[in-house]
Amino acid sequence: MSTETTTKVAPRRARGEYAKTRARKMAILDAALEVFAESGYRSGSLKEVATRVGISEAGLLHHFPSKVHLLEAVLEHRDDLARERFELDGDDGAATLRALVDLATYNASVPGVVELYCVLSAEAIAPDHPAHDYFVTRYVDTREMIASAFRQLQDAGRLAPGADPHRAANATIALMDGLQLQWLLDRDVVDMARELSDFFASFVEGFRVAEPLDGITR
Amino acid sequence: MSTETTTKVAPRRARGEYAKTRARKMAILDAALEVFAESGYRSGSLKEVATRVGISEAGLLHHFPSKVHLLEAVLEHRDDLARERFELDGDDGAATLRALVDLATYNASVPGVVELYCVLSAEAIAPDHPAHDYFVTRYVDTREMIASAFRQLQDAGRLAPGADPHRAANATIALMDGLQLQWLLDRDVVDMARELSDFFASFVEGFRVAEPLDGITR
Repeated sequence: MSTETTTKVAPRRARGEYAKTRARKMAILDAALEVFAESGYRSGSLKEVATRVGISEAGLLHHFPSKVHLLEAVLEHRDDLARERFELDGDDGAATLRALVDLATYNASVPGVVELYCVLSAEAIAPDHPAHDYFVTRYVDTREMIASAFRQLQDAGRLAPGADPHRAANATIALMDGLQLQWLLDRDVVDMARELSDFFASFVEGFRVAEPLDGITR
Repeated sequence: MSTETTTKVAPRRARGEYAKTRARKMAILDAALEVFAESGYRSGSLKEVATRVGISEAGLLHHFPSKVHLLEAVLEHRDDLARERFELDGDDGAATLRALVDLATYNASVPGVVELYCVLSAEAIAPDHPAHDYFVTRYVDTREMIASAFRQLQDAGRLAPGADPHRAANATIALMDGLQLQWLLDRDVVDMARELSDFFASFVEGFRVAEPLDGITR
């Protein structure tokens, strides 16, 4: 009987601990996203992130052993938030493309995070970089997600003749990444969302971003 | 008379010194380009560069005070070589676009240099980075060079209706930069020259890269 009780209580405690650890990690990631968005990738300090969560820097390092580990987790967290906020993987290809344009608009409001992504993705080219595998996987997944949207549009007869969903996905990602770099170097020279939208319109029949009346503010 | 001789000799000596320094610097840049192309941006060492030129590391640091200074100079040197090798700023817009496609083909043969460019341009987003001003200026110049090519094509009636030379230049640069990043992460997933060529063909009437018979191997 007492054994049974222990058996029953233990998992409950473990779940409690797990939930607590998870909540703490999420709080750290939210704070880190804020700090890096405000101060940029290099200046944003672990100490500042820890302070906002109300823990010590050592406490933070218990969850994320180094700044690079935290940065990678922040980017994953950003991806999760983007998937919650924007309809990126539904079965309506045009909606996915519109969501990508909305994402570009949103990105323009968080330059620190975009810079973090831009620098870390370039540094992670090196196979021994701690975030290398994360970026390789991320590009494979993103490519497949966007190619799937183009395939849906192709099936609906809306893709220009000769356009290839897989290659169009590569070009879309390239354009988004490249526009970010130019925009970070000079905010006035390029409108990321507009360029992306026009690119889609150039080979997707009838593509247009939703009207403001649809309830989306941009 | 003797004063006159001195006056005549002194500048000749100065020119000799200048030419020697310049030759030494060029030799260092050629060696550095090789080393970074072979070993990549991080692993390529100043010591290895110095050894290839037959000087000491201290001797190298006399010409380039830090690795970042050398890296920036290597990129400028690469730009100079590209301008010599490819017809990037002539008055034939289509030839300029073809030269950009040729440049993308060439870049695929020097991944170490492309990686150097990719990482350094991202890190140089930070306004206090030693290569920041170089990249800002480089993007302004490159944008103007490509926009000029598109304006020539527009004047010749070859640009699709609604296409804007300045914005097309931004998109071209973004596509080139973004394709490089994807290609560096996975060489098999993308053909940089082909994607760029198809992009031009999508809004430049009659655009095609030169036939192999024209003497260009690709």
